[in-house]
Amino acid sequence: MKYGYLGPEGTFTEAALEQLLAQRGESGTAERYAAISVPDALGRLQRGELDGVVVPIENSLEGGVPATLDALTRHGELQIVAETLVTVAFVCAVRPGTALEDVRAFGTHPHAEAQVRSFLRRRLPAAEYIPTASTAAAAKALSEGTADYQAAIGPALAAERFGLDIAEADIGDNADAVTRFILVQRPGSLPERTGADKTTIVAGLRSDRSGALLELLEQFATRGITMSRLESRPTGNGLGLYQFSIDLLGHVEEERVAEALAGAYRICRELRFLGSYPSADGKITPVESLTTDTAFQAARCWLDGILEHGRRD
Amino acid sequence: MKYGYLGPEGTFTEAALEQLLAQRGESGTAERYAAISVPDALGRLQRGELDGVVVPIENSLEGGVPATLDALTRHGELQIVAETLVTVAFVCAVRPGTALEDVRAFGTHPHAEAQVRSFLRRRLPAAEYIPTASTAAAAKALSEGTADYQAAIGPALAAERFGLDIAEADIGDNADAVTRFILVQRPGSLPERTGADKTTIVAGLRSDRSGALLELLEQFATRGITMSRLESRPTGNGLGLYQFSIDLLGHVEEERVAEALAGAYRICRELRFLGSYPSADGKITPVESLTTDTAFQAARCWLDGILEHGRRD
Amino acid sequence: MKYGYLGPEGTFTEAALEQLLAQRGESGTAERYAAISVPDALGRLQRGELDGVVVPIENSLEGGVPATLDALTRHGELQIVAETLVTVAFVCAVRPGTALEDVRAFGTHPHAEAQVRSFLRRRLPAAEYIPTASTAAAAKALSEGTADYQAAIGPALAAERFGLDIAEADIGDNADAVTRFILVQRPGSLPERTGADKTTIVAGLRSDRSGALLELLEQFATRGITMSRLESRPTGNGLGLYQFSIDLLGHVEEERVAEALAGAYRICRELRFLGSYPSADGKITPVESLTTDTAFQAARCWLDGILEHGRRD
Amino acid sequence: MKYGYLGPEGTFTEAALEQLLAQRGESGTAERYAAISVPDALGRLQRGELDGVVVPIENSLEGGVPATLDALTRHGELQIVAETLVTVAFVCAVRPGTALEDVRAFGTHPHAEAQVRSFLRRRLPAAEYIPTASTAAAAKALSEGTADYQAAIGPALAAERFGLDIAEADIGDNADAVTRFILVQRPGSLPERTGADKTTIVAGLRSDRSGALLELLEQFATRGITMSRLESRPTGNGLGLYQFSIDLLGHVEEERVAEALAGAYRICRELRFLGSYPSADGKITPVESLTTDTAFQAARCWLDGILEHGRRD
Repeated sequence: MKYGYLGPEGTFTEAALEQLLAQRGESGTAERYAAISVPDALGRLQRGELDGVVVPIENSLEGGVPATLDALTRHGELQIVAETLVTVAFVCAVRPGTALEDVRAFGTHPHAEAQVRSFLRRRLPAAEYIPTASTAAAAKALSEGTADYQAAIGPALAAERFGLDIAEADIGDNADAVTRFILVQRPGSLPERTGADKTTIVAGLRSDRSGALLELLEQFATRGITMSRLESRPTGNGLGLYQFSIDLLGHVEEERVAEALAGAYRICRELRFLGSYPSADGKITPVESLTTDTAFQAARCWLDGILEHGRRD
Repeated sequence: MKYGYLGPEGTFTEAALEQLLAQRGESGTAERYAAISVPDALGRLQRGELDGVVVPIENSLEGGVPATLDALTRHGELQIVAETLVTVAFVCAVRPGTALEDVRAFGTHPHAEAQVRSFLRRRLPAAEYIPTASTAAAAKALSEGTADYQAAIGPALAAERFGLDIAEADIGDNADAVTRFILVQRPGSLPERTGADKTTIVAGLRSDRSGALLELLEQFATRGITMSRLESRPTGNGLGLYQFSIDLLGHVEEERVAEALAGAYRICRELRFLGSYPSADGKITPVESLTTDTAFQAARCWLDGILEHGRRD
Repeated sequence: MKYGYLGPEGTFTEAALEQLLAQRGESGTAERYAAISVPDALGRLQRGELDGVVVPIENSLEGGVPATLDALTRHGELQIVAETLVTVAFVCAVRPGTALEDVRAFGTHPHAEAQVRSFLRRRLPAAEYIPTASTAAAAKALSEGTADYQAAIGPALAAERFGLDIAEADIGDNADAVTRFILVQRPGSLPERTGADKTTIVAGLRSDRSGALLELLEQFATRGITMSRLESRPTGNGLGLYQFSIDLLGHVEEERVAEALAGAYRICRELRFLGSYPSADGKITPVESLTTDTAFQAARCWLDGILEHGRRD
Repeated sequence: MKYGYLGPEGTFTEAALEQLLAQRGESGTAERYAAISVPDALGRLQRGELDGVVVPIENSLEGGVPATLDALTRHGELQIVAETLVTVAFVCAVRPGTALEDVRAFGTHPHAEAQVRSFLRRRLPAAEYIPTASTAAAAKALSEGTADYQAAIGPALAAERFGLDIAEADIGDNADAVTRFILVQRPGSLPERTGADKTTIVAGLRSDRSGALLELLEQFATRGITMSRLESRPTGNGLGLYQFSIDLLGHVEEERVAEALAGAYRICRELRFLGSYPSADGKITPVESLTTDTAFQAARCWLDGILEHGRRD
């Protein structure tokens, strides 16, 4: 099996891939591939060059990852089959022998720079910021001696991978920051239902109906379904035209989820199913008695009796 | 075929039966039976002594007819298969030779008395009111000479049937008053779908959930279904415990109606289906594009594809 | 003070009046007047001939009392100021010396007859039923020797008032049957807020908007207000045109109730307020923290700050 | 008056500032200040060093601008008083004398790079991408001769400002791309109501209530208010904890908007009002008759009569 991830090496995404491989018992056997972008990774997956791809989907500080949300929506025929959470712990890495006092400039990705501001004010108040294409790119250039800066900010994995020293660890403003990654595969069988599942969809509303979002949410609420994420994404066709990227707690094989999705499909301009897969936190989703599979099946059975014979209590 | 109706002869219910028989081309062949009460009529129908029963269900002045609504709910296994409307036109009937000036007392059913008040004030201001068990019973007793009154108020059909003269016609306070009657039969095949149909149900809400009526109505609203009648009826188990008698525009064989009924069944303590049948007014129910059978079937088809193979746009 | 009630003497309504007078400490001083109908009683109240009127509004077996609901709606400028509950216990009354075996016919009001069916089957299977205008009228005629029957069915109060013996007590089919009565007065100050209050309204929906009932109920649900009664009443202008008679748990002086009523007024074709008054059961209505007066006032205060100065957190 | 904007000079934000100044007739008199970040600009505004600040809030391709949304939420006491739209037209700028064939590398901001992909594939397929802190920074460095690249991609204004030639104009993938900018000021009086207004809020839901977003949207829907933008933003306190940045069509001085905001304030954990201001498109918001100021005032007037005197139709 060959797995791709959003590279370069040494990023949090690679850490996520390793977690997922360990869970699946494939750490020893899997081949890894660092893709240069999410579309690149997904394209290779679709063409059969890769068997799975790991990409970030949501960050507890920054929100949804637009590149992933948009690429998954545009790419048909790919489904999410697993998710995992990685704690976002930043370090300040330097070449062996460099002290923090020697740092006149530092490199990192703008998102990372935004998350270590209090460390910068406290320890590198005079250092210049040099943006890089990724946190790993910053570490790599520093390691190879091609950088205009003396420190790289990123994950510990990047420092380790490129032979840098850690001048200071745990420098993030928010110690609890966490990023959620997903494993994407070509369609096939759905992951088995565990009771602790998520379903991800993208819903484009009909622009010509007001209250359309309300109607969509009612499809979930009337079946007792909780949303764990709702993100608006522009359709690209004009200001104010949005589609919504949504995670629901439940599996499409549950009656309540299946009926809600069919209802949503009916009222939306476009509805894309991106996958049903086990929740990383493993928490069983409580289902109230009125929305169990049994309750839905009893109702259908009652209705079938009427359709066949008319009233017969 | 033997049809029962809420007797005695000469009531508006008999007029309704004649209308329904004419529509069905059975005027010449059908046997008629005047039952003494709604439960009597329905009991005979259930035991196979009758093939159909006509009873009043709703009056434009008085609202729902409780005896019918309750009897139909309690009697299982009977279904409504047709409806018809009868204009409620009252006459003041007398024995041949009697003048209005000679009338010192009049007999009629209390509901009828309530609908001819302005005629009474104007033409019989001094006459005493003698309540009778039905408008036809008043006419019959007057005709047979056993009555303590000189005039009977009721339908023209009663005067005609019992050989009375009409002293004054069209004496109702409200010239547009109309009563709706239904034809009930034992279960069998459902009446065919015409596009102008009604479905009648009785819904008992779960008392332990606030907002339960709102949830029930949402089951209809989210599928674009209009209610043409909503009546609350006490359950008999205490003040404030109600069930609802409801007419919906649509036929249970329509996808939108079927799914709404299954949803209602799931969230209600008790849901009884009483029938799907052609509307008396014959007005085609408009169905918006998002709730046609085609829209529901497309959604189910989309869902089935996912359940079989995972995502596949 | 002079109080009217729906007569004649000896009915459950008179019993309700006595309960209400006892609660108000006016049993010894009040003058009583037995009106011949609900409109008669309300008319006298409005003209100042009476200071209060007691009428039945709801029965646990039969549902709302149409005559009262309609009369209160049509009569403007009268408000409900109190309610009380009376247990509906029927007796079979006879002239002293008569035994049940001697009863060949019995008189009572049709509503009462419908509630003692099992007693009739068991003890008077062969007796003829003679309808009367009220249960008290049956007792009176029996007592005065003008009746064609040997037994009168009605409340114990009627037997007592007209000097009849009770051949058998507690003969109702449903031992828990209860009727709710209201005390109506001319407008003036509202009854004081007790925390255990009801508010009664009549709402006429705009016929030209589908989902109108749903919108009305949402006005209550979004403010956490519970309905304890919802009755549909025909408007008299055609089949399917209804208005709704509603009891809400709460007092119009509560912010949540006031805002809900103003919202309902805005979206209804017609909204009539019939009164806010203490609940007979005295149960305090629980109010969740988001809908307390404090919560509404804090929101208004926040809004006023914005309207005065623009944003100022 | 001194206005700040998200610098450096030559960005789309400067173009937006010029548009706004022209509309306000202050082009000739206003002092301009290029801030280094959104928080820097807002901080200076709050301290009184600036009188207004222009920042981007929403892009038709990328969606909301997180930095602005978050900064405005965190910064109390600042309000949006105007908005303007700028068409996002990219050019490829070079030093005079350079031809496209000479370009081996190009600099620009990552967001801009993402929007000119088809141009890059077509005309610069082999060129290396050098990320810069802003599109203007790319132009400036190129102009000053300190850049490692031969072309800068950005707005025409940047090319003009830094004396570069335009090698190719209109190179964006999406010719209709537009960015929306807002003018922020310290609180004071609200901008006048024009009938074509927007109101911006940030709502933090109570995490302990399911269906909370549905309830929030109902506050708007029941008053006939349309949302023109809904963005979820993480609260920073964990995955799945969101607040919503919302634009409503309407002005807080309208009764329907004021009541909806007060209702939202009551049910939300936190609600921040960021301003009511004229829509850039000038389209009058249609208000249906049930939600006009007149309708709200009539309802309040009716209610006040009840609170003062009890029922009085």
